[in-house]
Order: sequence, then structure tokens, then C-alpha cells
Amino acid sequence: MTEPTAPTLTDCPIGLDATGTRREKDSMGEIDVPANHYWGAQTQRSLVHFSIGRDHMPIEVCHAYGIVKKAAAQVNAADGRMTQWKADAICRVADEVIAGQLDSEFPLFVWQTGSGTQTNMNVNEVIANRAIQLLGGTIGSKKPVHPNDDVNMGQSSNDSFPTAMHVATLLEIDSRLLPRVRELIESLRTKAEEWMQVVKIGRTHLQDAVPLTVGQEWSGWAQQLEDALEAVEAARPGLLQLAAGGTAVGTGLNAPPGFSRAIAKRIAALTDRPFVTAPNKFAALGGLDAMVRASAGLRGVAVSLLKIANDMRLLGSGPRCGLGELHLPENEPGSSIMPGKVNPTQCEAMVMICTQVLGNDATVAFAGSQGQLDLNVMRPVIVANVLHAIRILADGCHNFRVFSVEGTTLNRKRIDAYVAGSVMLVTALSPEIGYDRASAIAHQAMEHDISLREAALASGFVDGATFDRLVRPLDMVGKGVGGA
Amino acid sequence: MTEPTAPTLTDCPIGLDATGTRREKDSMGEIDVPANHYWGAQTQRSLVHFSIGRDHMPIEVCHAYGIVKKAAAQVNAADGRMTQWKADAICRVADEVIAGQLDSEFPLFVWQTGSGTQTNMNVNEVIANRAIQLLGGTIGSKKPVHPNDDVNMGQSSNDSFPTAMHVATLLEIDSRLLPRVRELIESLRTKAEEWMQVVKIGRTHLQDAVPLTVGQEWSGWAQQLEDALEAVEAARPGLLQLAAGGTAVGTGLNAPPGFSRAIAKRIAALTDRPFVTAPNKFAALGGLDAMVRASAGLRGVAVSLLKIANDMRLLGSGPRCGLGELHLPENEPGSSIMPGKVNPTQCEAMVMICTQVLGNDATVAFAGSQGQLDLNVMRPVIVANVLHAIRILADGCHNFRVFSVEGTTLNRKRIDAYVAGSVMLVTALSPEIGYDRASAIAHQAMEHDISLREAALASGFVDGATFDRLVRPLDMVGKGVGGA
Amino acid sequence: MTEPTAPTLTDCPIGLDATGTRREKDSMGEIDVPANHYWGAQTQRSLVHFSIGRDHMPIEVCHAYGIVKKAAAQVNAADGRMTQWKADAICRVADEVIAGQLDSEFPLFVWQTGSGTQTNMNVNEVIANRAIQLLGGTIGSKKPVHPNDDVNMGQSSNDSFPTAMHVATLLEIDSRLLPRVRELIESLRTKAEEWMQVVKIGRTHLQDAVPLTVGQEWSGWAQQLEDALEAVEAARPGLLQLAAGGTAVGTGLNAPPGFSRAIAKRIAALTDRPFVTAPNKFAALGGLDAMVRASAGLRGVAVSLLKIANDMRLLGSGPRCGLGELHLPENEPGSSIMPGKVNPTQCEAMVMICTQVLGNDATVAFAGSQGQLDLNVMRPVIVANVLHAIRILADGCHNFRVFSVEGTTLNRKRIDAYVAGSVMLVTALSPEIGYDRASAIAHQAMEHDISLREAALASGFVDGATFDRLVRPLDMVGKGVGGA
Amino acid sequence: MTEPTAPTLTDCPIGLDATGTRREKDSMGEIDVPANHYWGAQTQRSLVHFSIGRDHMPIEVCHAYGIVKKAAAQVNAADGRMTQWKADAICRVADEVIAGQLDSEFPLFVWQTGSGTQTNMNVNEVIANRAIQLLGGTIGSKKPVHPNDDVNMGQSSNDSFPTAMHVATLLEIDSRLLPRVRELIESLRTKAEEWMQVVKIGRTHLQDAVPLTVGQEWSGWAQQLEDALEAVEAARPGLLQLAAGGTAVGTGLNAPPGFSRAIAKRIAALTDRPFVTAPNKFAALGGLDAMVRASAGLRGVAVSLLKIANDMRLLGSGPRCGLGELHLPENEPGSSIMPGKVNPTQCEAMVMICTQVLGNDATVAFAGSQGQLDLNVMRPVIVANVLHAIRILADGCHNFRVFSVEGTTLNRKRIDAYVAGSVMLVTALSPEIGYDRASAIAHQAMEHDISLREAALASGFVDGATFDRLVRPLDMVGKGVGGA
Repeated sequence: MTEPTAPTLTDCPIGLDATGTRREKDSMGEIDVPANHYWGAQTQRSLVHFSIGRDHMPIEVCHAYGIVKKAAAQVNAADGRMTQWKADAICRVADEVIAGQLDSEFPLFVWQTGSGTQTNMNVNEVIANRAIQLLGGTIGSKKPVHPNDDVNMGQSSNDSFPTAMHVATLLEIDSRLLPRVRELIESLRTKAEEWMQVVKIGRTHLQDAVPLTVGQEWSGWAQQLEDALEAVEAARPGLLQLAAGGTAVGTGLNAPPGFSRAIAKRIAALTDRPFVTAPNKFAALGGLDAMVRASAGLRGVAVSLLKIANDMRLLGSGPRCGLGELHLPENEPGSSIMPGKVNPTQCEAMVMICTQVLGNDATVAFAGSQGQLDLNVMRPVIVANVLHAIRILADGCHNFRVFSVEGTTLNRKRIDAYVAGSVMLVTALSPEIGYDRASAIAHQAMEHDISLREAALASGFVDGATFDRLVRPLDMVGKGVGGA
Repeated sequence: MTEPTAPTLTDCPIGLDATGTRREKDSMGEIDVPANHYWGAQTQRSLVHFSIGRDHMPIEVCHAYGIVKKAAAQVNAADGRMTQWKADAICRVADEVIAGQLDSEFPLFVWQTGSGTQTNMNVNEVIANRAIQLLGGTIGSKKPVHPNDDVNMGQSSNDSFPTAMHVATLLEIDSRLLPRVRELIESLRTKAEEWMQVVKIGRTHLQDAVPLTVGQEWSGWAQQLEDALEAVEAARPGLLQLAAGGTAVGTGLNAPPGFSRAIAKRIAALTDRPFVTAPNKFAALGGLDAMVRASAGLRGVAVSLLKIANDMRLLGSGPRCGLGELHLPENEPGSSIMPGKVNPTQCEAMVMICTQVLGNDATVAFAGSQGQLDLNVMRPVIVANVLHAIRILADGCHNFRVFSVEGTTLNRKRIDAYVAGSVMLVTALSPEIGYDRASAIAHQAMEHDISLREAALASGFVDGATFDRLVRPLDMVGKGVGGA
Repeated sequence: MTEPTAPTLTDCPIGLDATGTRREKDSMGEIDVPANHYWGAQTQRSLVHFSIGRDHMPIEVCHAYGIVKKAAAQVNAADGRMTQWKADAICRVADEVIAGQLDSEFPLFVWQTGSGTQTNMNVNEVIANRAIQLLGGTIGSKKPVHPNDDVNMGQSSNDSFPTAMHVATLLEIDSRLLPRVRELIESLRTKAEEWMQVVKIGRTHLQDAVPLTVGQEWSGWAQQLEDALEAVEAARPGLLQLAAGGTAVGTGLNAPPGFSRAIAKRIAALTDRPFVTAPNKFAALGGLDAMVRASAGLRGVAVSLLKIANDMRLLGSGPRCGLGELHLPENEPGSSIMPGKVNPTQCEAMVMICTQVLGNDATVAFAGSQGQLDLNVMRPVIVANVLHAIRILADGCHNFRVFSVEGTTLNRKRIDAYVAGSVMLVTALSPEIGYDRASAIAHQAMEHDISLREAALASGFVDGATFDRLVRPLDMVGKGVGGA
Repeated sequence: MTEPTAPTLTDCPIGLDATGTRREKDSMGEIDVPANHYWGAQTQRSLVHFSIGRDHMPIEVCHAYGIVKKAAAQVNAADGRMTQWKADAICRVADEVIAGQLDSEFPLFVWQTGSGTQTNMNVNEVIANRAIQLLGGTIGSKKPVHPNDDVNMGQSSNDSFPTAMHVATLLEIDSRLLPRVRELIESLRTKAEEWMQVVKIGRTHLQDAVPLTVGQEWSGWAQQLEDALEAVEAARPGLLQLAAGGTAVGTGLNAPPGFSRAIAKRIAALTDRPFVTAPNKFAALGGLDAMVRASAGLRGVAVSLLKIANDMRLLGSGPRCGLGELHLPENEPGSSIMPGKVNPTQCEAMVMICTQVLGNDATVAFAGSQGQLDLNVMRPVIVANVLHAIRILADGCHNFRVFSVEGTTLNRKRIDAYVAGSVMLVTALSPEIGYDRASAIAHQAMEHDISLREAALASGFVDGATFDRLVRPLDMVGKGVGGA
């Protein structure tokens, strides 16, 4: 193909100094678009047909699309299919997209075509018009940069949209979720170590049990989150496989040989992540299994956090009529009626976030199963739910840590009293006096509402010295966190 | 209580002409808030502690809270607990809230205290400060209108938030969901009637079956939606029961006798809906069952719509290599690679919406089960998911109808050809020649890939006249939609 | 059709005195079936192809099918399409099916054809062979009673299976679920009345709040279940609509005019329930919305029970280190290690049952959405999950009531101590001494870990007589259950 | 402790030759049990209190418990805490349990105590009584083998039940799920290779698209399942971590030092799987995250299978009025009304299985989140749902493969006709004559319902030779499965 002489790339700032509308055109004909926006005909048509609710395509998908478009332009230029000056212009605008400088140009909704074509065209149109502006052309003329022929070269929505989904999801996991959860784990571990020797009563079935230490209990929470993150990590290899190069149905029609691997390599370089091309493009277009699996990973984090937040608010219940072992930080007034009332609001927000993530995951799994023949057209709803889950989990972990976990302190008096009062310590007498006598002592203590020590001494089965030698809670909690 | 002389209610327009911050105070102490906003200390604290994700408390909840606050002020004034001029000021601002004129003053997130207290206080603070402005007082002074003592009089978040949830949900169902679904039903019914005599092949298990008419098929879709709406209607009585008057734990402490019924009556008058007071306030605070049930109703609509949208895109598949019975409207270009490609994008958006609603509903049911003792603190996540579902279902039905259903036409040639070609019409010969001979004819037709008529005549079991007399598809579709 | 002279209906007892196999035949050819069973070729084929897992078609579906077959025979005889002696034989065997006397003849699995055809044929074959036996014919000869031509006359699996689903579900709801839940409600109400004057501390956000009575709390649980049952009741009208008469695709082909209404009337008479024919047979075959709605009703019961069982085990936590307000019955030893340990096992079983019901419901909603064109072929999985949910909820409610609720007693000492110790009673001082002074007293009590009375007297703001006059918990709990 | 002289281990066959009842005893007192069963008092009490529904504890859990009990006895004997003869007797009976010879002795239900204690005691009681029988003692005497002191030595239900859950789940995955899914993958791959050169029309959005090969399409299905299995494999490390040695609350109280590692090592040896001790016993008891993750893995398999089975039945739809590309095997008669009707029943069973698995997984995730403090008491419902999912997926894959996939053949005539007729092949003309002219040709073909070749020649833009040179479907499908 013959290209015009290389135009000059200017430094024209972002923005269109125009009012009213301008006429844009696609294969359906002409349509008016707002003159102060870069988007074109297909974006405008989508706004007409799909203004549903308030759910916009997550901006992270558009940012990731910027990476995909830049990588494609680089590959196309390197292969000689695109002039360097054109590729440069596209890459320059793609950088603006990636940096979030064109966010207001991506107004489309989640509820659109299931392939994500409209968002792909939105990105194509915006990049084309902005590149045209930078190259001194006429906005809407599709010259010298065409949204389809140039910005979309070698791509179809069918392969580029899932590519952008994977890139967006992986980057959000890496930059947002993992750091926030890890900081929370670190915070829990610090507390666990601090309180590793503080003996407290255990509770199984919510009933008094043998003792453990506060630190042991907290170490279990940290471990649960670590295990959950391990599952998130295990979902990364799937996300690292990209559909790009499959084009319309997975055969790669209209993309040159080697395009798959080349663009994956460029995306890897641009993101500093080991992206590779998916081994089977038919699976990559017909299914969205890596996204479903990532969602399951997020769900795992939510399942663990639910348990942790529930435990914390239960242990912090009171102040007088609850378990009262923990003092959670007081961040805001509780009640306008009841002075001094403090509520475990961070725990509550976390629990709600987790139930939301479970619902999101249900949507993702359902949608993931609904591929039909050579395409799964549930992509927007899947990526929207996954990125939403990442965002609220990450933000939630941050606030939960900063405003609740880190400021939590122990009510040692209460904790000690429970240990002292519990009849379950009787277990320690069993080896010496036998299960039956121990049992009798326990029942006497319960029946007469006296301390275990009092009951033991009254029973005549054991003297004070023996009792004090045997019933030592600290000796009952074992060593470390690995059990016997 | 002694009140100052009635101040004058001015017509000061909405807006605070100030920059920087102002100092507001609550029981935790002082805090700076943006000087150009009406909200106070507790709202600001919530913004500090709960800026999680991008999910804001649905504005419909705030509008509904406007109704609750107005009703409370009316009751309090009528009972002589509040001066009339103060009630007038509160009602005036409540009207502004209801009309959406103060929407930018409700910045809080879904992820907050599970009782919704922070949104209640947000509303209280905004109404108080705006009322103070209208009465010529000093913003932030809590005089002469106090957010707690006045705007919140006789209420607790624990009873007022679920009241606002019910009001918002019912109004959204009535004003948004029901009309949009009913219009869709009407549109489906119109098509059904238009095509009631167009015979088409039936398909069960996706396999060719005996014929029915296009209109019969469409009538089934309309009926499914009608049944679904009936279930939504059945959830209304629960939503019409209000928690207001239960205050902190359901006992009604600090609200005067009769307050429950009085405020429900006022809310009924303000909304023109038959709201009543909930018969048991402990259930109303400890559970959110009416919301769970409403969500199940919405899910029912989604379940039916999923089936309908799936059917439509399947019947519209093609143009050459699918079923091709329906022509769905072409709203936008399909593919940049493949000219003439048109995709069932409205169906796809609808299917995605429905999977979202199922996920939302999963969250709502889970959250609804997690009440603890005298309060369910999963309210914000529940109301957010229910209102979201209503919104996308309603908008989705509108677009689906306008941009797809209404413009759908039949491919009569294809429809007729299927009927003519189907071997299942052989069923009509059974009574005359017996099941076995009919079966033999059918198998011959399939094996030799000839028409049923050809096979029948070749078999010698039936002559042309008899065949033409018996095998009349229009006689096989019965009458109407009620079966035999 | 000409029928043989009426054979005599004998009293031959149930059972086939044969060993090995016998040859049965269907349109696919011959197949050996166990000689000691009544089922025929199609049942046997299903056993070959669908022995998946251990999930058998719920026997209640087969019983309900007995009702359908009996009703059909009655209608067919009444209309003169079937000889009376044949109808009598079919009805006689149908009664045996209904009574459960032939349960071992229905070996098929849930995982079969999605229309339920194989179970329909199983019923047809068993009834035919048993009727042949009673009429002195040869088993497997299909004479004088044919499984298809006679037992299935006027029916298709497509309309008879959903009819059996509705009948089975409704009867199970009526005979099993509603009585058991109502007994539980009654039991909760009895306790509520018994303890209506026992003041206890309220807990919101799990934090100490103002008091209510034990009876008020229990009344809330009872109310939640009543509301949940109301939703189950609201699902009955949908279940009362029957698909019978729609035959293969809803048109009623091969069933005579009036068959729909006639068979519904017969089924109504046989079950003493107001069954009617579904107004639109295309919806009745293409969707299963009434089942989805019934499932939502069951889910509502589970959501409420989850809350109740969770509350009970939390209030029963202890004995020394939990809330300890309730004594739940001790039904079995708790731990082999810890003498005296009693666990809230009935609550735990109930909570597990409820989570199961939520999962079942997720399956039902998903499956309900997956109808395709003129048939939903997810019927077996839907009916299996709905009947399973009914069964475990009903049995669970029974055991929960008998083995836990009814034997629950109060720990009055603990309950009274919480009320006495709570600083939240300070709320009652507010009107007299003001919010600020009350707040100061509360903080002093918490800080120095003294009683509210001690703190109040130490403050000098109030004397003992005044304190005792104002701080009367019983005056703070209002009247009844309707709030203020 | 002093032990009696070693009694002789006899070869007494399994079975108790007794009728009526015998008196057994536990810490709650005496209770009659059936004399012909080995179980004891606690099992009997569970039958009284928990006969709920028909859901029995999966027998695989009991078998796995046999392994746990054998391993414990081995460790206890090796450490000198148990005499060798007693350990031998326990191991001998444990082998009978593992081999399924005592299955009728495990009658308990899923709905029991949430810790699984009753099933643990059931196993303990059965092993003890059977060992007593083998050693010549008196059944029920607890001598010389005690259910708690001996069979349960060093264990608590709290750590042994999750250990049995992990062992059962892992063994079922390994022995049942993985082989059956792998066989299915192999079968899909074989078909894919066989049909790798058969060009067919692609369909995206269910609309005609550019071609691919049948083999490519099938390769995508195989790849989806491979990816799904990879996720199942990724869940194995979590399952390989065992809670044993944590005893009651995770501290390992009453188990000797080193017990955790020793028993894990024994279990590894007995199962030939690399089981290890869980690094944190508090997480292992308080959560069940590895089970939730395994369930997510199973769900992933279901999500892929749903897509595959849905595709197959859609491609097999017809015979005349559907897509008709595939001939699925005919296994049973379709309809009693319509001769020749064959339904995709294996696909339908598979789709139902998958929706069931999604529901099971919803239950598991919910239950997994509901741990409280030092124990998650949702274990029975979790293990029952996971093992159920494994079972139906595995059996379903087997039947789906044998009775459907392997016998599937192509309708080449139909496949070729679609390719020949599709206008989407016009895409191949674009590079030669331009997008606009190609588009005009496509529209002419559609409008006049003629072939693409006819339209192309009529347009005058291209001659026959050129058309035949360019429009070669086989050149449009690329190479292999990796895209461009």
C-alpha cells in the first residue's frame, strides 16, 4: 500500500475546541456526534442504543486497550505493514489513553454488544481522531489514520477485547489487590506475633473449649488470607495467555503469520509481565475460563475475609454484654440515642463487600458458561464484575487494616477472666485423676456456679498444689501454630 | 421544650458561597468539611473511613429518605413536639431532597456501616444545614435546626433506613420497572396477535417437532413475563410494611405512642401508596425479608427475559447458516472484517443484564440471611443490589423493546420452508395409516433426503389426495394458546 | 378403535415371580429387562445410558405421575376414548403407584433426558405391565394395555412431566413443609408469650443497646417465618396451573378439545386441591417459572431460618465464655476430650440445611432460565432440587423444634446481670439530666469498670432515688411488638 | 497405662448374629441400639436426633476415615502409646472399612453436628466393636478396644474430620474425576484431529462468520477442559495439607509432639499421595478454604462442559430445521408421538449436571465463609456437596463420552452447503476488489437470495476464474489452532 509523505506529529494539547455536533460516518451511514469529543459514529450509535443503567465499561479496560493498540501498532510497523510515522502517532495517543488523559472519551456502558466491539470501536475512533489532530488532519475524516484499517489493523474485537480483559485484570490484581491484601496479612501477622503468648479461651461451635493464644488465633486468619492469595496467584498463568492473533473466529484470518506471538511479546514488554499467546485461540474466543478462574480466586479471598471480619466483630462485641475480648478502634459516633456506643463498622463494610464479591462471582460463572459456538458474548458483564470485585476487595482491605485492624487492642482483663473461669481447663486434670472424676468436678463447677478450682478442691480428688501444678493454661496451648 | 420565636423562612437559593473548609462537630469532636457543601461531621468522617470503590449509595435511597424526614416532621409538628416553623423548614428542604435538587450533597458509599447510619446522618446534616440557611442561621451551628434532635426526631437509623429502603424500592418498581416490562409485554402481545396464524415448525430439545404458530410462541414469552410481574406484585405487600417507629431495637424507645402508625400514614399520603406500619418491629429490624423477596421477584423477571432473549437470537441466527426465522433490526455495523454482518446486540445486552440480576440476587439472599440478633447490618449492600437490578432491568426492557422487538420481522420464506420440509408432520398420518407405517415413511424421507410427501407417495400407503387432506400444518396447531 | 371383550380385573398381588430377564421391545428394538420387574424397554435403556451418581428421580414425582395417569384414564374413559375396564385397570394400578406400593419399580436417575420422558415412560411401562398382570395378560406384550397408546393417551412427556412436577411440589409443600414450619412458628410463639415480660439487653451491630424483652425477640423470629410462609403461599397459584393438555409443543395436538380443563379438574378432585389448566401452554412448556418461584419461596424460609438458628446458637454460646442467655437442650455428648461440652448441633444442622437450600435455589434459577424455544429441558434437575429443599427444610424444622426450640430455657441470672450491668440504660437519664451529663456518666462507668448506678451517684448529677425511679428497664421496652 | 496380655486376633467374619437391641452407653447414659449392628450409643443418638431427609454422609468420607484411623493406630503403636496387638486389630478393621466391607454400618446423615463429630464417633464405635469381636471380647463393653481412648487416640473430630474430608476429596478427584475427564478430552482430541481439515462456517454472536474447521472447533473444547483440569490440579496442594494433629482447637492438646507430621506421613504412605501436615492448624480448623477452592475447580470443569454440551446439541439440532452439522448417536426413542425424533439426551443430562455443580459450589462457598472463631461447623454440607459434584461430573463425562461424543458423526453435506452458501466468504475478495465492492456483492447476494458466486459474477467486478482462485475456504482457516 502506498502511504502519503510522513506528516509531522505536533504537540497539540488534548481537547477539541468546538461546540455543537459534527457529522461522522460508518457503514450504517452518517450520524451527528458531539463536536467536543473525539469519539466517532459507532460510539455514538452505542450511546443511542445502550444507555442502560449507570454502569460504564470499567476505565481499566480502556487503559488496557491502549496497551493493546500500542503493541499492535508496534508490531505492524516492525513488520512494515504500517508506516513508522503512523505507528508513532498511534503509540503517542495510546500512551495518553494508558495514562488516563482521555478517560472522558470512553462513555460507553457495560450493557452493549457481548463481544465488546463497541468499546473496541470507541477506542479505535478516539485514537484515530486524536492522532489525526496531532498529525494536522481533519477530525472525522479518517485520514490519515483510520479507526479500522489502522488502529484496528490485524485485530478483531473478538480477539482484542479478551486480550484487554486479561491485561486489565492482571494489572489490577498486581497493582491493587495483591499489595492491599498483603499489607493486611502483614498487619495480622504483626499482631499475631505480638500476642503469641496471650492465652485465651478457645471456642468451637461457639462453645467454650480448651485454650489457645490470641496470637495463634490471629495467625490462622493471616494463613487463610495467604492461602487465598496463593489461589489468586494460581489464576495468573491463565490470565497471562492472550487471545490476540485469533482475530474473528480464532483462525487468525487477516492477521499475518507470527502476529500472535509478536503482539504478546510487545504487550509483555509494555507491561513488564510475562504475557504469552494463548495456545488455542478457539478456546480463547469461545470461552472465558481464565476470567472465571480469576473470579474464583477473588471469591476465595472474600470467603476468608468474611470469616475474619465476622470473628473480629464477634470478639469485639460488648462492651459489657458481649464477648469483649477485643477493643476495635472507634472511628465515628455510634448512636444518636445511646452515648458511648461504638460499632464495628469496618467489619460490617468488609462483610458486605464479601457478599458482593460472591454475587459478582455467581454472575461471572454463569456468564462464563454461556459461550455459544465460536464466541462467548458475555464479556462486558464478566470483566465489569471481576474488576469491581478487585476494586472493592482491595480498597476494603486497605480501610479495614488502617481503620480497624491496626488499632485493635486486647481487653486483657476479660481475656484472662474467661480463661480463669472456664471449666474446660478440667481437661488438664484428666490424666492425673481420670476422666470420670474430672467430669464430676466440671459438673459441680457448672451446677454451683463456682470456679473450677473451688470445685476441684471441694471434690477432694485433688489438692490446691496439685491443681495449680496441672491446670496451667499456658501449658495447654502447645508450641507455635503447627499443632502437635 | 422552649423554642425561639419563629424565624422567617427565606427563599435563599441552593448553594453555599464559600471556599475552603468549615469546622463541624459531632460527639467524636471537630472535623473540617468542605465549605461549599451542606454535609456535616459524620458525613465527612464516613468519607474518610469508607472511600471504597466507586459504589455510591443509590440516590433513590436519599430521595426516599427525604420523604421519611418530611413525614416525621409532619407527625412531630402535628403532635406538638416540634414547632410548626421548624417543621415547615424541614419539609421545605425535604422537598428539595425529594426533587433531586440536593443530589450532590450525598457523596457516601455503599460500603459503610451496615445499618445505614451514615447515610441517615448525611441526610440529617444536609437537611439541617440547608434549613439553617433558609432560616438565616449559621451553617454548622446546629441552630435552630439540629440534625439529631430535630431532623431525626422520633427516629433511629435502625428503623428509618429500612423504611427508606422500602419506599425507594417500591417507588422504583412502580415508576420504573413495571411500566417498562409492561410495555415490553404489550409489544410482545401485539406481535403475537399479528402472527397468530403464521405456522412454523416447533422445536423441542432443539429438535424438529410438530408445528405451532409464531404468534403462539410469542404469546408464551408474553405470558412468562406476565407471570413474572405477578410475582413482583406479590412482593409489594411486604415492601409496604414500614419499620419506622421501631427506633433502636424495635421497642420504639424515645418515639411517642402512635408514632408508627402516624408516620406510615404520612408516608402513604406523600407517596400515594398504601404504606402501613410493620406489625412486628423486631422482624422488621432483625431481618430484611421483604427486600429478599422483592429481589426474588426481580430474579423471576430476569429468568424469563433470559429465555426470551436467548430464543430471539437463536431464531434470528443466520442469515444463511442459522435458523433464520426472524429478522432482528440492524442498529449498528457488525464487523469491520465481514460486510453485512449484523449481531443480536440488544439480546446480548439483555442476557448480560439478566446474569447480573441473578448475581445481585445471590448477594441479596446471602446478605438477608446474615442478620445478627436485633439488627441486620447488611442493608446498604442489599438496597444497592436491588435498586441496581430494577434499574438495569427496566432500562434494558425499554431498549430491548424499542431497538429490537418492535422492529423484528419474519422471514416467511424460511419459516414456510421448514414447515414444508419437516418430517415431523408425519404425525398427522398416524391416525389414518397407523404409527408403524407413518414411522416407516418418516425414516424413508430422512434416509433418502426427500420430502415427506415424496416418501409417503413412494410408500404406497397413501395417495396424494389423502396426504394433502391430512397433512395440513394449520390443522395441527390447535386453537388459541390454551392447548387442547 | 375396537377393543376386546372386557377382561376380568383380578386381585393378583404385586410382584413378578420370575428370575433372569425377559425381552421387551420399543421402537429402537428389543432389550432384556430383569424378569422380576415391571418396567420395560425404555426404562431399561435409560438405566444403561444414565446411571450417573446416586441421585434418583424423587419418588414423589412418580407418585404424582400416578395421579396424572389416573386422571387421564378417567377423562379418556368418560369421553369414550378408552373402555371402562381398561381405565379401571389403569386407575387401580395408578392407586398402587400413588400409595407407594410400586416404589421399587422406579429406578431412574435425575440425570436423564431433560424433558423427563424417561420417567414418564417408566411410569407408563410399569402401569401397563402391572395392569396386564391384573387383567391376566402376558407381561411385556403391551396387550391389552399399551404403555403409549393407553397409559399415555392424550399426553406427551412435555406436558405431563411438568404437571407431575407441579402436583408433587404442591403436595409436598402442603403435606410436609407448611405443617412443619407452622409447628415451629407455634413453638416460637409459645416461647415468645411465655417470656414476653423478661427484659434483656438488646444488641445491634453485636454491640450492647437498649433493652427489649426475650419474648419480643422471639416474636420477631416467629414473624419472619410467618412472612416467609406467606411467600410460599403466594407461589401456590402458579403451581396450581397445569400444563396437561399442551401435549408436544403446547398446541394440544392429539389431545381432544377440552382435555386440558377436564384433566385439571380430575387432578383437582383426586388431590383435593384447586388445580386448573394453565392459561398459556407455550409458557407452561417453554418455561418453568412457577417452579423457580416456588424455589424462591423456599429460599425465603431458609433465609429466615438461618438468622434464627444463628441467633439461637449465639445466645446459647458459653457456658462461661459466651453470651449464655439461653440453655439449649443437651442431646448428645459434646466432646470426647472436654467433659460437659454441649454443642448447638440442631442449630448447626439447620444452618447447613439452609445453605444447601440456597445452593439448590441457585441451580433452579439457572436451570429455569435455560429453556430453549418450545421446551425447557432442565426439568429433572429443577424438580429434584425443589423437592430436596422442601424435604430437608421440613424435616429440619421438625427436629429443630422438637430437639432444640421446645427444650430451650433461659439463664435468667445471666440475662438479668447483662441488663443490670449495661451502661446503655443511661439513655433513660437523658431527658432528666441531658445528653451530655448522661454521656459523661456512661464514660465514667466504662472507664472505671463500675456499674452505671455507681457512676451516676459518683457524678453528683443524680441521687439514688432518682436513678432508681428513672432507670427501669421494664419501662424501656414499650408495649407489645409493634414499636411506638 | 497397663494393658492386658495380648488377646488373639481371630478371623471372625463380618456380621453380628443377634436380633433385637443391645444396650450401649456413653456419657449421656444408656441407649438401645440394633443388636445386629456394630455402631454404638452416639451413632444411635444421632439417628434419633438427625434423621433429616435422605442425604447420608458420603461413604467416601467413612472410607477415608478408615485410612485416618489406621494411620493414627500405626503412629500410636510406633510411639509406644498403644500396644501392637491393639493397633493391629484397629488396622485390620480399618482395612475392612477402607474396602467398603462395613458400609452398612455408617447410617448417619449429612445434617448432623457441623464438626462431623457424630460420623467420627460412628467410625470409632464401629471399629471398636468390630475389633472387640475379632479379639473375642463383648460387643459394647469398650474392652479391650475403646472407641475414644483407643480408636480416637491423639485425635479430635475437629482435626480428624477435615483430614478425612481432604483425603476423600483428593482420592475421588484422582480416581474418579481426573480419569473420566481426561478420557473425554482424549476423545475430543481424537475427533478434532480426524476433522482438522473439514472446513465449516464459523458463527459468532450466533451469526454467520468466516470459516474454521470442525477440528479447530473441537480442539477448542478439548483445550477448555484441559485448562479446567489444570485448575483442579492447582487445588490439590491445599487438599494435601492435613489438619490432623491440631486436635480440639489447633493447639494439638493431648496429641504428643510430632504427631502431626507422623500421621500425615502415614496417610501419605497408605494412599500413595504426598500428604503433609498443614502449616497452620488454626486456619485448618477455622476455615475450609482448600475445599472451597477444590469446589471452584469443579465449577470450572462444569462451566466448560456446559459450553461444550450446549454447542453440541445446537450443532446437532434438526434434522431438517436446525443447524444439523452433527449427527449425535441415537440411544433411545425420542417421542411417543413423533416417529424418528431423536433428542440430545446426553447433552441435556450433562447440562443439568453442570447447573447442579454450580449450585453445589454456591453452597460450598457460602458454607466456607461461615466459620466462627476456632471452628468451621459447616463441614458435612461442604464435603457432601463437593463429593457429589465430583461424582456426577465424573459419571456424566463417562456417559457423555461413551454414549454421545464417540458416536458423533458429521453431516458433511450440510456442513459443505453452509460454507458454499455463506456470504461471509466475500471477505476473501476484499484485498483484490476493495471493501466497498465486496460489500456491494454481499448485499446483492442477500437481497436476491443468490449465491455469492452468482452475485460476484453478476456484479462484473470479478470473473469466475478470479472468484474461484480467491474464494477458497480452506485458505481462510489458517494453520493449526494457535491463530495467526
